Amino acid sequence: MEILRTVREMQQRARDEKRTGRLIGFVPTMGCLHEGHLSLVKLARARADLVVLSIFVNPIQFLPGEDFFRYPRPVERDEALCRDAGVDVLFYPDVEQMYAPDHSVMIEETLLSKGLCGASRPGHFTGVATVVVKLLNIVMPDFAVFGQKDAQQLRVIQRLIRDLNCPVDIIPGPIVREWDGLAMSSRNRYLTPAEHQDALCLRRSLDHVEKRVREGELTVETLRTELAQRLARVPSVRVEYIEFVDNETLRPVERVEGAVLVALAIRIGSTRLIDNTVLGS
Amino acid sequence: MEILRTVREMQQRARDEKRTGRLIGFVPTMGCLHEGHLSLVKLARARADLVVLSIFVNPIQFLPGEDFFRYPRPVERDEALCRDAGVDVLFYPDVEQMYAPDHSVMIEETLLSKGLCGASRPGHFTGVATVVVKLLNIVMPDFAVFGQKDAQQLRVIQRLIRDLNCPVDIIPGPIVREWDGLAMSSRNRYLTPAEHQDALCLRRSLDHVEKRVREGELTVETLRTELAQRLARVPSVRVEYIEFVDNETLRPVERVEGAVLVALAIRIGSTRLIDNTVLGS
Repeated sequence: MEILRTVREMQQRARDEKRTGRLIGFVPTMGCLHEGHLSLVKLARARADLVVLSIFVNPIQFLPGEDFFRYPRPVERDEALCRDAGVDVLFYPDVEQMYAPDHSVMIEETLLSKGLCGASRPGHFTGVATVVVKLLNIVMPDFAVFGQKDAQQLRVIQRLIRDLNCPVDIIPGPIVREWDGLAMSSRNRYLTPAEHQDALCLRRSLDHVEKRVREGELTVETLRTELAQRLARVPSVRVEYIEFVDNETLRPVERVEGAVLVALAIRIGSTRLIDNTVLGS
Repeated sequence: MEILRTVREMQQRARDEKRTGRLIGFVPTMGCLHEGHLSLVKLARARADLVVLSIFVNPIQFLPGEDFFRYPRPVERDEALCRDAGVDVLFYPDVEQMYAPDHSVMIEETLLSKGLCGASRPGHFTGVATVVVKLLNIVMPDFAVFGQKDAQQLRVIQRLIRDLNCPVDIIPGPIVREWDGLAMSSRNRYLTPAEHQDALCLRRSLDHVEKRVREGELTVETLRTELAQRLARVPSVRVEYIEFVDNETLRPVERVEGAVLVALAIRIGSTRLIDNTVLGS
């Protein structure tokens, strides 16, 4: 496995690769890799000639006071996991490589990024959009894989690719869960064992909604109330949002018709967790 | 010469070309071609295997009330000029090809785009930045040529390329002037003969400043006053700005030291004209 740390080296490597007609598959990450990331590598491995994984904790997608500084960076473990997963090139730039001191260009998505996580994390998706376009220009992949756990991020990125005509295919990767149902996240590390236990209410309440929809309950107000009641039973949980939105437009819906994304964000202690499921798809 | 009207065809053509290792040179225009554009084609022709010229009057870089609707679109003449100039591919999309009805992604440059033309045309450079990134993703050129007449636009685009790591070289093309000194512009068509005559004050006042600097006058306040007095002698001219700025950062300077861009914007009747020169370079 090659490890490249500069933009110049990575772009040169990508150019050389493209000249030979080989397909580049790309998995952008913030590191602290877990089974969720490795499932994305597997998806990339299945159809790419060259799999590039990037690790970059992107400062501009964190808000002041968020966990940028304490975000876990287990460098050696991440490298070993990449090697074992069959990553060909690990792109591992530092902040100075990615942002000039007088960096002055930002990418704004103005519709899909405003609700859900965008409402409580203003500027977050601008940071995500900007770094994703930069990484696509540096790695020049034929396709890139993004996890469905960050459902809104996935939609924003798909919109970005469409509206900026980026020559890349986006492949969504399904949510990967721990044995007990908690969606894999680098931030699960922040949870105490008791908090981890409490966090299972996320998956359980989504399970409940799925069951109720199978039973024929399609009114969002009813489903949302039941979901809220279930989360309210766990004293450590503070709900940030419970949203039922169209899976494409992310606009709120009143009935479960077509593909509806149920997206949850909660806090347990100082840890923010999200989870989601798509109904009727 | 091929004429391609869809994004899909253009991207496919570019991909095919790159696979054979041929160099793509790109000249983006809004059409109504003149000698200035053709000099950019010549620059592209000199080092590219394939020269792509795009014609797209980009609605989102016009402000409400500006000349989007009356902007000249002499289609057949433009096609003939491209053929004669040795353009290989004319990319000629319509607005529907370029912008989905729910288009929601914009590119913001937050430093270089704020002064000069950006001050009187808020949002203009966001529209320029967005369409340039789209066109680069569609045409996938190895290099693109932009004219120095739009000096601020050139700087904003160079910044964009740097900050988004776009894998493309930017080649500036010198200003081309009519025999009487007026900088070539598609908007010169709007001028009556008398207005055209009045517009020569642009080049003449820049000539005067260059001469004064050669004589040793380096104080911007003095130079600006003299320049303003010269423009004030022409009754039809309304000055929008007279700026002396650092040629890289576009920050105002007080003395002519290093490369200083002198940029002018005026209105004659309803026509907005710009011109510039770089001192001390």
